[in-house]
Amino acid sequence: MTSGRLRSAEIVAIGTELLTPFRSDTNSLYLTARLNELGLEVRGKTVVADDRAAVESALRAALARAEVVVTTGGLGPTDDDVTREAVAGVAGVGADEDAAVLAVIDGRFVRRGRRMPPINRRQAQVPTGAVVLPNPNGTAPGLWIEVGDGVVIALPGPPRELQPMYEDSVLPRLRARCGGVVLRRRTLKIAGRGESDVDEIAQPVYGPWRQAEPAISTTILASLGQVELHLSSQGEDAARVDRALEEAVEALQAVLGPAVFSVDGRSLEEVVGDLLVSRQLLLAAAESCTGGLLLGALTDIPGSSAWIAGGVVAYANDVKVRSLDVPAELIAAHGAVSDAVAEAMAEGVRRRLNAGLGVGITGIAGPAGGTDAKPVGTVAIAVAGPGDRCVVRTVRFPGDRVMVRQMAVRAALNLIRRVLTDADYN
Amino acid sequence: MTSGRLRSAEIVAIGTELLTPFRSDTNSLYLTARLNELGLEVRGKTVVADDRAAVESALRAALARAEVVVTTGGLGPTDDDVTREAVAGVAGVGADEDAAVLAVIDGRFVRRGRRMPPINRRQAQVPTGAVVLPNPNGTAPGLWIEVGDGVVIALPGPPRELQPMYEDSVLPRLRARCGGVVLRRRTLKIAGRGESDVDEIAQPVYGPWRQAEPAISTTILASLGQVELHLSSQGEDAARVDRALEEAVEALQAVLGPAVFSVDGRSLEEVVGDLLVSRQLLLAAAESCTGGLLLGALTDIPGSSAWIAGGVVAYANDVKVRSLDVPAELIAAHGAVSDAVAEAMAEGVRRRLNAGLGVGITGIAGPAGGTDAKPVGTVAIAVAGPGDRCVVRTVRFPGDRVMVRQMAVRAALNLIRRVLTDADYN
Repeated sequence: MTSGRLRSAEIVAIGTELLTPFRSDTNSLYLTARLNELGLEVRGKTVVADDRAAVESALRAALARAEVVVTTGGLGPTDDDVTREAVAGVAGVGADEDAAVLAVIDGRFVRRGRRMPPINRRQAQVPTGAVVLPNPNGTAPGLWIEVGDGVVIALPGPPRELQPMYEDSVLPRLRARCGGVVLRRRTLKIAGRGESDVDEIAQPVYGPWRQAEPAISTTILASLGQVELHLSSQGEDAARVDRALEEAVEALQAVLGPAVFSVDGRSLEEVVGDLLVSRQLLLAAAESCTGGLLLGALTDIPGSSAWIAGGVVAYANDVKVRSLDVPAELIAAHGAVSDAVAEAMAEGVRRRLNAGLGVGITGIAGPAGGTDAKPVGTVAIAVAGPGDRCVVRTVRFPGDRVMVRQMAVRAALNLIRRVLTDADYN
Repeated sequence: MTSGRLRSAEIVAIGTELLTPFRSDTNSLYLTARLNELGLEVRGKTVVADDRAAVESALRAALARAEVVVTTGGLGPTDDDVTREAVAGVAGVGADEDAAVLAVIDGRFVRRGRRMPPINRRQAQVPTGAVVLPNPNGTAPGLWIEVGDGVVIALPGPPRELQPMYEDSVLPRLRARCGGVVLRRRTLKIAGRGESDVDEIAQPVYGPWRQAEPAISTTILASLGQVELHLSSQGEDAARVDRALEEAVEALQAVLGPAVFSVDGRSLEEVVGDLLVSRQLLLAAAESCTGGLLLGALTDIPGSSAWIAGGVVAYANDVKVRSLDVPAELIAAHGAVSDAVAEAMAEGVRRRLNAGLGVGITGIAGPAGGTDAKPVGTVAIAVAGPGDRCVVRTVRFPGDRVMVRQMAVRAALNLIRRVLTDADYN
């Protein structure tokens, strides 16, 4: 057994179904986050079929590149499940049935009033020298086995089995071998500015941090209507790393200003919900082109019934008139996609639903319906309230129907946030 | 150059960002589907960092296992982008600047009134013997290079560059080398039945097909509220393969009955939309626990304005009364989550929005709000119309808030479908 400090890891996902067009390996994102926390750099990821030779070859290659190799899947009871044999093969050891492991598997069936199928006996095979990792959520135990200077950790594929096993059995063992290095992350979430915009402002600030002590590395990630700055830093003094990251977050907030909506992991929906709660306001929304997506996103938050009244999906013009009291003449004069109609929708839904804040969204999501003056992607968003105030924005989003709708939802959430946080916002 | 028939493939995704907890490789799902169509089996997938030695090692390992290796990413202009060098290294050749490629890259900048940054010159480096694959959607050209008995195909990372390049430049070249074997897929989509239920009915039918000629393999995939049976078969006679799959689809439809809602790739939303169009009906929805998700899903379909009137998100009881004319006494007598209230919501939204079909959904998504009689997951769904008819179902879904809401949306869509396809459905 080695006692050298572990620094790098590879992940090997085992399963023929992961090589079809229908499934992808998602465990590796969870595992990467957790391994990184211990200061372990993930050097590579591999997906292989349920084939013993392929698994052994992948394990050997991974062990040549990294000290820790985590496998997922292939621990089930069927002939397809070859991880146990492959791990033993790579370690150059045999495997024996472990009576204690067999008793635990058998007990799971007995507790459910069933008999253990003979096939499950395979799951009690343990390679010589391996530590068995208990699985409270399934029949497949995990394995921890030292191979040369490295370690192979075999975990079951289902996330609800893998994650508790990692927390309970893998994390303490790994931590003891990682020399007390910790990796910490912080995330700034930003709305209303594009990726290159954010990078232009932030780069001069974060650029020098790569050479600082402790060094801070920065990744910028853009998704529809939102930009995230991910900061990470590692070291042996956790308090020092945390302090450095906190100062970094503050420096970036100072240059990015109110575009930063979250530094504590909260989503834009959660930030809006918390603002509504603190202002004791109920929100109502009138959606045309977004067709319910804004309300759908907000009501995803548990407890949102405390700050959401509801809304109207006014897809047809007729519904805008009948259910939101938008004057038909207003639609005729300005068009359904206009500042005036967005305002009338926001005011209408606020009044009809007796809410403190009303939102109106009307736009052209495409692919049809665009004109020269109002091309596909044109969306008007209004926020009525608190009080007599009504703020309206017309934006032109790029991309297809899905993108336009998603970006309109993000923009509406951000407009609500700005109205609620900045008394002078207009 | 080899002219042997190609049978197997590996995919190597290149990019340090794909080794963080935030990004996963999605190109490989698209590539797997397309490679499978040519009869190429995908044997493995690897993700490596932007590091030349790591990329070369991954390419060599992949070439040892498969004849076709497709790489994605690492073709950009920066120092991080090492795919060109690694491909040349593995092929054992040098690289030269290609004047024609340089002219195309330069032209892209000139057309936008900009000058090509000097850094982009790197993208015109072409390994000796490689075929350049044009990129109409970006600056990075792709590469096709023979290495021993195999071929390495280097594609850019962004899907909007990768996919057209595959279609235009890779597919014809690969097809010529795949010996005329085709792989075809068919999918049956099923609603209203669980995975094990479907498998119990379908397995006796599809079981023997694995030994048939042409053999048909079957995969069962379950997602929230929906089960899919994926059939695939390959052979040199495309018409014969298609015929075998068509007969297989019909045999499964016969045993699964009306639970099968699609055999042509359409989603449940699209099937519902097509039914509404053919019946010339407009749909209106009143959503409580799903908070707009049903309408959001339906309005994702381009052209849905032809068959969606709109709806009301009646999250608060007050809104159910004010905007949907649900009698307050009805709520008091039966509770907001009840058959009676779901019916009144469906009738109310249909009348208010002047639609042919009304849907009402009211339930307890959790985590709070459950009782012994109506635990979290209880959802009542009503469909009012066509005509005087009103059908209502109360279901108890398992899982958390996200699951309950998604499954309620699927169940509502399926109830609409059943009402519109089966005159006797009740």
